[in-house]
Amino acid sequence: MKSLTKTGGLMVGIAALGVALAPAAFAQDAAPPVSPETAYIFNTLLFLIGGFLVMWMAAGFAMLEAGLVRSKNVSMQCLKNISLYSIAGLMYWVVGYNLMYTGVDGGYMGSFGTYSFDPVGGNALDTGYSTASDWFFQMVFVATAASIVSGTVAERIKLWPFLIFVVLLTGFIYPIAGSWKWGAGWLDAMGFLDFAGSTLVHSVGGWAALTGAIILGARKGKYGEGGQVMPLVGSNIPLATLGTFILWLGWFGFNGASQLAMGTINDVSDVSRIFANTNLAAAGGVVTVLVLLQIMYKKVDVTLVLNGALAGLVAITAEPLTPSPIMAIIIGGIGGAIVVFTVPLLDKMKIDDVVGAIPVHLFAGIWGTIAVVLTNSDANLGVQLIGIASYGIFTVVVSAVVWLILKAVIGIRVSEEEEANGLDRGEVGVDAYPEFTFGRG
Amino acid sequence: MKSLTKTGGLMVGIAALGVALAPAAFAQDAAPPVSPETAYIFNTLLFLIGGFLVMWMAAGFAMLEAGLVRSKNVSMQCLKNISLYSIAGLMYWVVGYNLMYTGVDGGYMGSFGTYSFDPVGGNALDTGYSTASDWFFQMVFVATAASIVSGTVAERIKLWPFLIFVVLLTGFIYPIAGSWKWGAGWLDAMGFLDFAGSTLVHSVGGWAALTGAIILGARKGKYGEGGQVMPLVGSNIPLATLGTFILWLGWFGFNGASQLAMGTINDVSDVSRIFANTNLAAAGGVVTVLVLLQIMYKKVDVTLVLNGALAGLVAITAEPLTPSPIMAIIIGGIGGAIVVFTVPLLDKMKIDDVVGAIPVHLFAGIWGTIAVVLTNSDANLGVQLIGIASYGIFTVVVSAVVWLILKAVIGIRVSEEEEANGLDRGEVGVDAYPEFTFGRG
Amino acid sequence: MKSLTKTGGLMVGIAALGVALAPAAFAQDAAPPVSPETAYIFNTLLFLIGGFLVMWMAAGFAMLEAGLVRSKNVSMQCLKNISLYSIAGLMYWVVGYNLMYTGVDGGYMGSFGTYSFDPVGGNALDTGYSTASDWFFQMVFVATAASIVSGTVAERIKLWPFLIFVVLLTGFIYPIAGSWKWGAGWLDAMGFLDFAGSTLVHSVGGWAALTGAIILGARKGKYGEGGQVMPLVGSNIPLATLGTFILWLGWFGFNGASQLAMGTINDVSDVSRIFANTNLAAAGGVVTVLVLLQIMYKKVDVTLVLNGALAGLVAITAEPLTPSPIMAIIIGGIGGAIVVFTVPLLDKMKIDDVVGAIPVHLFAGIWGTIAVVLTNSDANLGVQLIGIASYGIFTVVVSAVVWLILKAVIGIRVSEEEEANGLDRGEVGVDAYPEFTFGRG
Repeated sequence: MKSLTKTGGLMVGIAALGVALAPAAFAQDAAPPVSPETAYIFNTLLFLIGGFLVMWMAAGFAMLEAGLVRSKNVSMQCLKNISLYSIAGLMYWVVGYNLMYTGVDGGYMGSFGTYSFDPVGGNALDTGYSTASDWFFQMVFVATAASIVSGTVAERIKLWPFLIFVVLLTGFIYPIAGSWKWGAGWLDAMGFLDFAGSTLVHSVGGWAALTGAIILGARKGKYGEGGQVMPLVGSNIPLATLGTFILWLGWFGFNGASQLAMGTINDVSDVSRIFANTNLAAAGGVVTVLVLLQIMYKKVDVTLVLNGALAGLVAITAEPLTPSPIMAIIIGGIGGAIVVFTVPLLDKMKIDDVVGAIPVHLFAGIWGTIAVVLTNSDANLGVQLIGIASYGIFTVVVSAVVWLILKAVIGIRVSEEEEANGLDRGEVGVDAYPEFTFGRG
Repeated sequence: MKSLTKTGGLMVGIAALGVALAPAAFAQDAAPPVSPETAYIFNTLLFLIGGFLVMWMAAGFAMLEAGLVRSKNVSMQCLKNISLYSIAGLMYWVVGYNLMYTGVDGGYMGSFGTYSFDPVGGNALDTGYSTASDWFFQMVFVATAASIVSGTVAERIKLWPFLIFVVLLTGFIYPIAGSWKWGAGWLDAMGFLDFAGSTLVHSVGGWAALTGAIILGARKGKYGEGGQVMPLVGSNIPLATLGTFILWLGWFGFNGASQLAMGTINDVSDVSRIFANTNLAAAGGVVTVLVLLQIMYKKVDVTLVLNGALAGLVAITAEPLTPSPIMAIIIGGIGGAIVVFTVPLLDKMKIDDVVGAIPVHLFAGIWGTIAVVLTNSDANLGVQLIGIASYGIFTVVVSAVVWLILKAVIGIRVSEEEEANGLDRGEVGVDAYPEFTFGRG
Repeated sequence: MKSLTKTGGLMVGIAALGVALAPAAFAQDAAPPVSPETAYIFNTLLFLIGGFLVMWMAAGFAMLEAGLVRSKNVSMQCLKNISLYSIAGLMYWVVGYNLMYTGVDGGYMGSFGTYSFDPVGGNALDTGYSTASDWFFQMVFVATAASIVSGTVAERIKLWPFLIFVVLLTGFIYPIAGSWKWGAGWLDAMGFLDFAGSTLVHSVGGWAALTGAIILGARKGKYGEGGQVMPLVGSNIPLATLGTFILWLGWFGFNGASQLAMGTINDVSDVSRIFANTNLAAAGGVVTVLVLLQIMYKKVDVTLVLNGALAGLVAITAEPLTPSPIMAIIIGGIGGAIVVFTVPLLDKMKIDDVVGAIPVHLFAGIWGTIAVVLTNSDANLGVQLIGIASYGIFTVVVSAVVWLILKAVIGIRVSEEEEANGLDRGEVGVDAYPEFTFGRG
């Protein structure tokens, strides 16, 4: 099924072919079916709408992170987020797209080189969609992976080492890893399934974030000597809430447009199922966290509820099409539960994940990738586990090498003094809320 | 006209039939008209785009309310909003949709049971659209009704009684009431008109909010013993402004996609008229409030202007298609004027509506429902009034029963101490702005 | 090429004609191409989607400006932004649209009178799209021009003179100037090119803002007697960041839907190229500013990076279709560089532009209009310069007359006392953040 593989042209081209052949089948109906030209427009439009919705997720991550860091680091977090989205957008044109999608042929990576869009007045009907729309849609995904890292390593990483990591992540690490599945590489040949990227996007981002968090170390004051965990609380809860709603909205593009086609009634019906299931999974995540927190703590920490929504979304991302509604709710609900139980676990291991991105994107991403076997009969548990492990090993090893080289060559952590005073003064020179705070925090 | 009734399949199916018959009529044109498959894709796409725009309104209500409550209650308001959207999304699948749309047949409610989406690869061409897209679009409407309640009863209601009320409102009260008109129930048979829900969504939410506000009582300190009204001012005006803009944006989906079809040039032209009229009405509301406030008070309270935009939007919602531009402006402008004159009225009656939702959603909703007779010759004033009264009586009685049972059994109001300290500390455990405020407010 | 001229019907009608003729050419293919009805729906849908995305930019400007002014003027900035969007929406119906698009015929302005939408059930197939959708799309553009002025003259202009200026700008100045090119007036006849409005929208807004800033004078305390420049820093950086992301998102509608048609595979492919180029230009702006600031100042001021994104977007707007990706990046990058180098220049000239709108919208807009000649062989440098100069002279002269009359008759600047205390208390009566600030700022 084409909808389970993002092969950038290959499979959708076949779909367009199917549409082209359809008239014969419908000939006796008198009413003409969807013409290849109309299907081309619908497919391209799906990429454009999905693309702008996922682009909007960059704002969601920015707001979520700006809300969950302390006010002295908010300007920096804003700067990092708009910068990483921009860098991702350039690198994915410079080298990323071709590395991920061109000439992978069952192998381990594509080819090097910049990507060419369709010319002005593009008319390559055989492709089934505009190549520029496909590039745009794939580009916004790589930005998501980089955003995940940004949140985890906040409040102590230097600006430029972080941006260099983003260059390498969005230009090379994510595209090479992505080629294994969506580029029709070796994992795709094995039958690994990941519809919209629980593993390819969220776990890859999560693994890179985890590696960074370990190598960077925790923020000063986060973990006491006696093992106690200090709350370094977020400065702006409504911003974090806004960010979560933005991400939820964007996810309809993330999952829905990963159908990659809506030029047939079957495809657009599948997009609709995906919208509904995506919403049900997120709702399942929220309600699960609500109930668990009330039972366990008698208070409902809103930041965990927000992360519960996101974990539900991540969990359904590997397979948003085949689940029944109740299965979508359960898959999302377990995603939410994972947040409740693993946030304290990370703290116990003294891994300082500022915004909770590792539970949400990595752990719920793994869960979602496994859960594919519950609803999609084409999925094989062994293969799913091989995929999960392969992405984990590759991303951790390569990320660690990059982080360690950066650490050795230019240093990745700000000075203790700068950390105490806030990164906004040290590297940005702009206070986020100059009239609201008095050097506290 | 199908566009005036949301009958979930019935009428749109007829439209699809019309399209299917069209080829004959156009046969001599050589150029083929819109095929049923293409119309199906367009109709489904309208539901999906409209759906994600209305989903985004959940964020709008969250920001509006977070901006208009005091900082000590902001985290709670964020929590309630993301929770109510999630609960609505679950309940409308569990029971709401079928209760509203399945087997109403001129009666008072539909049937019980979960809703089934089209299967993977859905191909029910006769329906005219994907059922999952329809469910998604209808689901986001019920969340809107719940959001309205949330704002009015803010700053003193306990979390869990509120959430239980949301369960009943979104699973039963709204769907049963909605079935009377959009489910092709008794009011639809009488000829009641409410295009996108001035009454079905906004007034129902408003009546439930009003009932809650009366039973809950006012916030401590809102009304002095001598009858004076204390301003308990909102903590974050730009957030409230953002929320209003989000709602305005979402309203294009709310009204525009309530056309329920865009598979013909007539339908998509009507969607366009609706977009234009919706914008004109909101603009009329804003400018009317601006001018009235300047004349009456010599100052222009921005929160009333924001509510003027929303009241204009609510007022046009019952009939956004038939008004001429000038009528759209007038209908919206009167909506805005209603806000200016009824906000003080509620205060005089000591009904404490934290965000002004009752004037905006209930009073302007009633006005909009009456105003249908001004531009739509199919409307009958008597029937419109019967509809308005029926929704009012039903919602008030059932809501009151629910609120009173909740009050008796588990209590609905936080303690005086918790109200003074803020709900964020009492039930959420997370300050919204821990670095900006010092226990003031 | 129709895509280079917004002629509201004329050219797109021709496109629809082309589509109508297409069946003959495709006759031997069996599969039918896009029918005129289907193309009509696609074209209309492009206007609607583009329209709601550009409408959303009104929120972007509101948040950007609310974030960049001091907290004592934030409520006023919110009020001005929702008011100007509303006024634009009314005036463009009252007189603006016809003045811009109807009966210009190579001349200097169109006709007077309100605009008529297609009737209910519109079926004017020959037009190629719904007229209401076209009006909606063009209307949101005029609001953008007004938003630009709002930011520059913030923190010292009175509410009502500003709103009167908006009435004249959106009802007359912008439409008359716009008619010269998009209304098929004299500059269009000369061959001036401005795809989506680097000059027609952004420079016009920028010239009006510049004129206003000069006539109003700088804020008290901005420029010391010895020539030193005082930083009057923005109060909320994440809001400004959010505003920038909103604008970036909206720009896909701004540029993409200015293709004015997506009923052929060529058109939708061009829309896709425009999406990709728009994103690349913004990314180029961001990265250029990042690098320049690091080299020049060793700190990276996030507000300049945000403006770098916007300048990249403005620069690509005059021609987002023909540039290759690398040219898009360069055009956007130079836009970003312009911000870095001209923000201090304005300060040296004691022109107080609160949010940096003049460098972003005027200077980068001029650059973008010139840059058309680099990638579009139809462009002529002399004609581009004539266009730039004509818009500049016209807008400056007319704006100056309006500002000066307003100054003489009712005054445009608040009192020194009100400026010191903030406009929120003087004219709005609502503090933006009553619990966070203590009369500081």
